[in-house]
Amino acid sequence: MAKLYVVGVGPGDAKRMTAEARAALDAADVLCGYRTYLELVAPLYPDKAVFSTPMKRELDRCRRALELARDGKTVALLCSGDAGVYGMASPVLELLPAYPDVETEIVAGVTAALSGAAVLGAPLGNDFCVISLSDLLTPWAVIEKRLRCAAEGDFAVALYNPSSRTRAEHLRRACDILLETCDGTTMCGVVRGVGRRGQEARLLTLAALRDTRVDMLTTVFVGSSQTREIGGRLVTPRGYRT
Amino acid sequence: MAKLYVVGVGPGDAKRMTAEARAALDAADVLCGYRTYLELVAPLYPDKAVFSTPMKRELDRCRRALELARDGKTVALLCSGDAGVYGMASPVLELLPAYPDVETEIVAGVTAALSGAAVLGAPLGNDFCVISLSDLLTPWAVIEKRLRCAAEGDFAVALYNPSSRTRAEHLRRACDILLETCDGTTMCGVVRGVGRRGQEARLLTLAALRDTRVDMLTTVFVGSSQTREIGGRLVTPRGYRT
Repeated sequence: MAKLYVVGVGPGDAKRMTAEARAALDAADVLCGYRTYLELVAPLYPDKAVFSTPMKRELDRCRRALELARDGKTVALLCSGDAGVYGMASPVLELLPAYPDVETEIVAGVTAALSGAAVLGAPLGNDFCVISLSDLLTPWAVIEKRLRCAAEGDFAVALYNPSSRTRAEHLRRACDILLETCDGTTMCGVVRGVGRRGQEARLLTLAALRDTRVDMLTTVFVGSSQTREIGGRLVTPRGYRT
Repeated sequence: MAKLYVVGVGPGDAKRMTAEARAALDAADVLCGYRTYLELVAPLYPDKAVFSTPMKRELDRCRRALELARDGKTVALLCSGDAGVYGMASPVLELLPAYPDVETEIVAGVTAALSGAAVLGAPLGNDFCVISLSDLLTPWAVIEKRLRCAAEGDFAVALYNPSSRTRAEHLRRACDILLETCDGTTMCGVVRGVGRRGQEARLLTLAALRDTRVDMLTTVFVGSSQTREIGGRLVTPRGYRT
């Protein structure tokens, strides 16, 4: 039976993978993925075939995974974090009608908003938004609008893809938009490389975040007006104590 | 060493738990949690001590877990889904300064927005918000404001706690607010009891969602303007194909 698993593998280390994700990788004949994620997982499966495409070749990767499954292989298409959150589940499902014989199963995983939040404390303890600052696939004007709405709604916010070589100013621009509404003392946090060697985390104000350089492996958290530092951790109260 | 793990156990079945969550439960002397969640997990550990408090006694449960840890037990405080998203991580961290000897570790898990999305397809494939419709801890006016901001920003939205016996009309009221901005044909989905016996899922329009009754075990997804039904699944494109 031709089968494609789209698998969220979490932040990268085996212990943050679900048993279901691990079972899908166990079952697969071929592991597909962006090279960086494959490198995290493939060592667990030294004898399995692997297939990768570079960044910006995501559709090719999805098509190849679907073709392999159509040809009778059991395929696991790996996604960092969750399969759905900025992952390969949506492009695979968009392409799937052209591969009617391929059974596809989406396997959820711990996305960076959750794994990063756990490192910092509990910044997403109440209503929150997840926004990518990459304008490769979403116009910057849409991103700006969403940042304004997130601030207006006093959501805590997790920012994905906060920066890259070609978008070094995006985090600063995002902070400037948030600062139109939010106080500069709003508590924020940054986490880099959850579960990987050299994991880093720190808390800072929104005003300080504006002048901070981060990379693509970093997830940024901007608190709501209720978010506080408590004992070195970033906490957005749910409201039980008020 | 006194230690408290605040553990996101995912939707409830063992296979959707991370290895890290499972290891924390393995290590614990005592499992604490809301009874419904304990009932899902405790059968895996028939010989462990358990402690539960009813709904609305969350602070008592956190304090008791902290006291047990202070007294030298290794304690796992169970949370449905993730430890942070409407979970016990934030109240525990608020209380923690009174228990300086207790080491606390937050263990992330697959929250209902992710596990439910995987069942439906990929509704959270682009920027999204997570909003609870429970006004036990958040004033309804704040919830309304966030719903308006989410619609204004054209986010996909995952709604937690969409209804209960005492709040049967909340989902309808939320839909009416979204319908001020969103088209009635906006694609939505509801998922109930992910990973449990009798799991249910269906797709429907926002206009139809308004007149649908759901319960507390249901997670509701409201698409963005880009969300579509493709082959029976709910998909919010990331934008690779445009």
